[in-house]
Amino acid sequence: MKLEKLVGDRYKERPADCAIDSHALMIRGGYMKYVANGIFSSYMPLKRITRKIEQIIREEMDKIDGQEVMFPVVLPASLWEESGRYESVDNSLVRFLDRNKNPHVLGMTHEEAAVQLVREYGQSYVKYPFMIYQIQTKFRDEARPRGGLIRVREFTMKDAYSFHTSQEDLNNYYEKCFKAYEKIFARVGIPETISVAADSGMMGGDISHEFMLLTPVGEDSIAICGECGYRANVDAADSITENIRDDISNDLELVHTPDVTTIEDLCGFLKVKKEKTCKAVVYQRNIDDSFIILFIRGDLEVNETKLTNYLKCDIHPAAVIEHSGLCAGYIGAHNLDNPNDKFTVLFDKSLEGTNNLVCGGNKTEYHYTGFDVSRDANIKNIEYNDFAKIADGGICPECKKKTISISRGIEVGNIFQLGRKYTESMGMQYLDNNGQSHCPIMGCYGIGVGRLAASVCEAHHDENGPIWPMAIAPWQVHLCAVRSDDEQVKSIADNLYDGLMQNGVEVIYDDRNVSAGIMFSDADLIGVPLRVIISPRNIKENCCEITSRDKKLSFKHSLESCKDKIIETVKNM
Amino acid sequence: MKLEKLVGDRYKERPADCAIDSHALMIRGGYMKYVANGIFSSYMPLKRITRKIEQIIREEMDKIDGQEVMFPVVLPASLWEESGRYESVDNSLVRFLDRNKNPHVLGMTHEEAAVQLVREYGQSYVKYPFMIYQIQTKFRDEARPRGGLIRVREFTMKDAYSFHTSQEDLNNYYEKCFKAYEKIFARVGIPETISVAADSGMMGGDISHEFMLLTPVGEDSIAICGECGYRANVDAADSITENIRDDISNDLELVHTPDVTTIEDLCGFLKVKKEKTCKAVVYQRNIDDSFIILFIRGDLEVNETKLTNYLKCDIHPAAVIEHSGLCAGYIGAHNLDNPNDKFTVLFDKSLEGTNNLVCGGNKTEYHYTGFDVSRDANIKNIEYNDFAKIADGGICPECKKKTISISRGIEVGNIFQLGRKYTESMGMQYLDNNGQSHCPIMGCYGIGVGRLAASVCEAHHDENGPIWPMAIAPWQVHLCAVRSDDEQVKSIADNLYDGLMQNGVEVIYDDRNVSAGIMFSDADLIGVPLRVIISPRNIKENCCEITSRDKKLSFKHSLESCKDKIIETVKNM
Repeated sequence: MKLEKLVGDRYKERPADCAIDSHALMIRGGYMKYVANGIFSSYMPLKRITRKIEQIIREEMDKIDGQEVMFPVVLPASLWEESGRYESVDNSLVRFLDRNKNPHVLGMTHEEAAVQLVREYGQSYVKYPFMIYQIQTKFRDEARPRGGLIRVREFTMKDAYSFHTSQEDLNNYYEKCFKAYEKIFARVGIPETISVAADSGMMGGDISHEFMLLTPVGEDSIAICGECGYRANVDAADSITENIRDDISNDLELVHTPDVTTIEDLCGFLKVKKEKTCKAVVYQRNIDDSFIILFIRGDLEVNETKLTNYLKCDIHPAAVIEHSGLCAGYIGAHNLDNPNDKFTVLFDKSLEGTNNLVCGGNKTEYHYTGFDVSRDANIKNIEYNDFAKIADGGICPECKKKTISISRGIEVGNIFQLGRKYTESMGMQYLDNNGQSHCPIMGCYGIGVGRLAASVCEAHHDENGPIWPMAIAPWQVHLCAVRSDDEQVKSIADNLYDGLMQNGVEVIYDDRNVSAGIMFSDADLIGVPLRVIISPRNIKENCCEITSRDKKLSFKHSLESCKDKIIETVKNM
Repeated sequence: MKLEKLVGDRYKERPADCAIDSHALMIRGGYMKYVANGIFSSYMPLKRITRKIEQIIREEMDKIDGQEVMFPVVLPASLWEESGRYESVDNSLVRFLDRNKNPHVLGMTHEEAAVQLVREYGQSYVKYPFMIYQIQTKFRDEARPRGGLIRVREFTMKDAYSFHTSQEDLNNYYEKCFKAYEKIFARVGIPETISVAADSGMMGGDISHEFMLLTPVGEDSIAICGECGYRANVDAADSITENIRDDISNDLELVHTPDVTTIEDLCGFLKVKKEKTCKAVVYQRNIDDSFIILFIRGDLEVNETKLTNYLKCDIHPAAVIEHSGLCAGYIGAHNLDNPNDKFTVLFDKSLEGTNNLVCGGNKTEYHYTGFDVSRDANIKNIEYNDFAKIADGGICPECKKKTISISRGIEVGNIFQLGRKYTESMGMQYLDNNGQSHCPIMGCYGIGVGRLAASVCEAHHDENGPIWPMAIAPWQVHLCAVRSDDEQVKSIADNLYDGLMQNGVEVIYDDRNVSAGIMFSDADLIGVPLRVIISPRNIKENCCEITSRDKKLSFKHSLESCKDKIIETVKNM
């Protein structure tokens, strides 16, 4: 491919609207173009990268007996009604009517389609286990697309679905797929990817893992124990607190706390530690705006995923609570006015058994001191659940030491044990060897292709451009003919280009009559791992210059044997 | 791949709802499954076939300097508003609102997306020509999906877009792409595909061709001249008639024609030939149900595509014409009551200059005889246009002989010269070498991948299954271990399977303990071109049996060297 003919513009300047480097570089380098919010077109270099990633994924899926299939992008609503998700999934699921007014959806995940495809095939136990997968476009109407290809609305995904007759068999396959994922991430150039325990969210099922590329720009938070190796998405990490109960419980006392509305203000005003406060965090259900009041220790933050999972519905932070009957900023668990139980009142387990706390007085500018949860929280049927976010320095749920650190990561893949959620709801059954009927157990396994490409870029770049690993680089060799107006340069470079191509090397060839500066900055943006420079000066020394994009290699080689040397170097990278 | 593990059911019986063989066989053979009207999922064998077809298309597109890119499936309505197609395309274009109430469409073709991607890149003449293409899912909400993969709503398509600075350059590229298409159809196994002149429909532009696989089950009609080689879709073929004018024009006379409503009845009743009648065909505009009355010679049929193109709007045959003021069944061009020109009245050129015709009397049960169009059709501003369908035995528009025959065909590809329709409406401009601004000229080039697979099946099958050409077959070799419970059979077949796989041969291996009958009928349905049979009887003769699915090959070969013989045979097929 001649660079001169490559469709797409390259830019010197970082675009203003790019928060992360991979996004900026993939716009600057002519990899993709914005079409609409969270929707991009790809130019040839990105298409070549994603095709190589797809091929690596395909090979690893085939090695664990995956069968590549293809599900539709557009699915009839009836399939999603069978599983119950037509109702339960929020408006990230695009719903529309076709010309005959039949409701359809755009596939954002394909559990329903997978069950539909194999429901008849899988009627006997002898057919199990099996795994089917596809690499296909999906659409998820994200509220806040961001970070270029990191969080988009339209994306290409490999999604795989396995079917089993026993939990042990699923466990074995899950383990196999886990290892295949490790191989995939290593092969595309980010072997540093780690797996973490995850929350299953709308997918259902119990056990799930995410594969995370740790990076400060990641949008997920991960709890890692430096001691025992425990790793989990904070959404899935148990928050463990030491609940301290003073020997003596003071009397409850209503105190005037003027102009004090935050926990910080309160602690300063009353000279107490945050750990000795009980704060109320208020949410509303999306469906009817009804209120949820969650009491939690003042130093902890609410994990909304845990809260959502507990409530089994979508929520948002309460916006306006005037006219609600709640005393905003001063809500407390003693004598809370809750007529007809119109508020859902919840307690985080960090409060269980604690005393001598400060909490809201349910009266503007007043707080209680001496609050003893078990003595004073006069609320019906109190139970304590884990709604808190695990914090940096917190207690490891595994080894119980205070060794948790919080890192940021990009989720590049996930695997779920789905159980029978879809096979039961959709009536998929098999007969076992005794003629008994059962619903099979499923696993599902996803990798976003575009996000993976962006993650590799995030992990491997410098300020001048991406540094693509050889396995997924858009081309293997970037050949620069510096001073292509020099006949000798042009003819030697042309010959080398032809020779490399004939040997199956993928070459992007820059024979434009432009300065070496422009040539090299374009080459940096395209990020091809091996660069070969033919120039009048090199020719005088009867050699070409070979360097690697990551600067680890840099040497000259004689023109006579440079073709073979390049082929060999590509193979070794 | 072991056949035992292949997901998908195979059926002996032809499904009731399959009108054409390829549809029936692809359901029977476990290639695909119905999901919704015009929407299918693919099992592994079909996925492997379409991937091979895609790779052949990709190679040929790359050879003519195509750059593979990727456009979104979901496009913002604003792009289609720029070209005017958001309004002009009927409800085959799926329109929906996203969560923020912004209108979007599902891409059914990507001219707008292509212009959007290269609008900035193509600002200088030095960048031209260039071609970009993608292989991607599309959705077209067809009113009547049918024929399995022949006419679906969701499909995978290769769509290519070329950009040029002159008509000559487009002509050259169009010719190149034409040849690339011929290569593609030859490589996938249907070299008999022919090209025909086509109507450009909603794409715009003047010159276009379709590539047709001739088959009685095709849904397109093609006019072919046996004499000069003229070939065109009937939608694009000029209808030429000999308009005979009798020397003497009889007087116009209103005659009673009781119970006569069809042209056939009328001709029988009055003892005239159809050619001597003038029939009225009535349509309504979709947009407002306003009437169009088309007068045409009684023996000819209306070509609705020509009529639609002339009217520049979508139409449908008039349903009920009561209360319209029209006298259904007896509409004529003499003294037609058309207050305020509320009806659009059109004349086919077959009527120009003709006389002594029978036509409707605009009065129930009455017709005129002696109708002379130029004398009696008292209608304002009559012009004669070509609205007729070219007929079998008709006159060739090229050599003017009565040599036209009509064949049926499946359209497997199309190429269009688009002109400046999209670049003008979307404001894409380049500066020429004199600094003058112009809109580039475009071409576009489509191939439906699934339809191509079905077409190959339609062209190559027998009653037992598809006969896939080696280039696109799901596997290259179908290995049958007949009596796999025989240890020797099993071990020889296992070894051969491993040996072939190690040599890169794609093998589907049937080592199930089932009868040879079941084995062979499954093999017929899977349609792999080369079959190898290991059986106790063959082993006694120290050989294996090698046959081809198309029955052209059938021989025995010694077990010692059969692996090499198979590899060689695969290469030669």
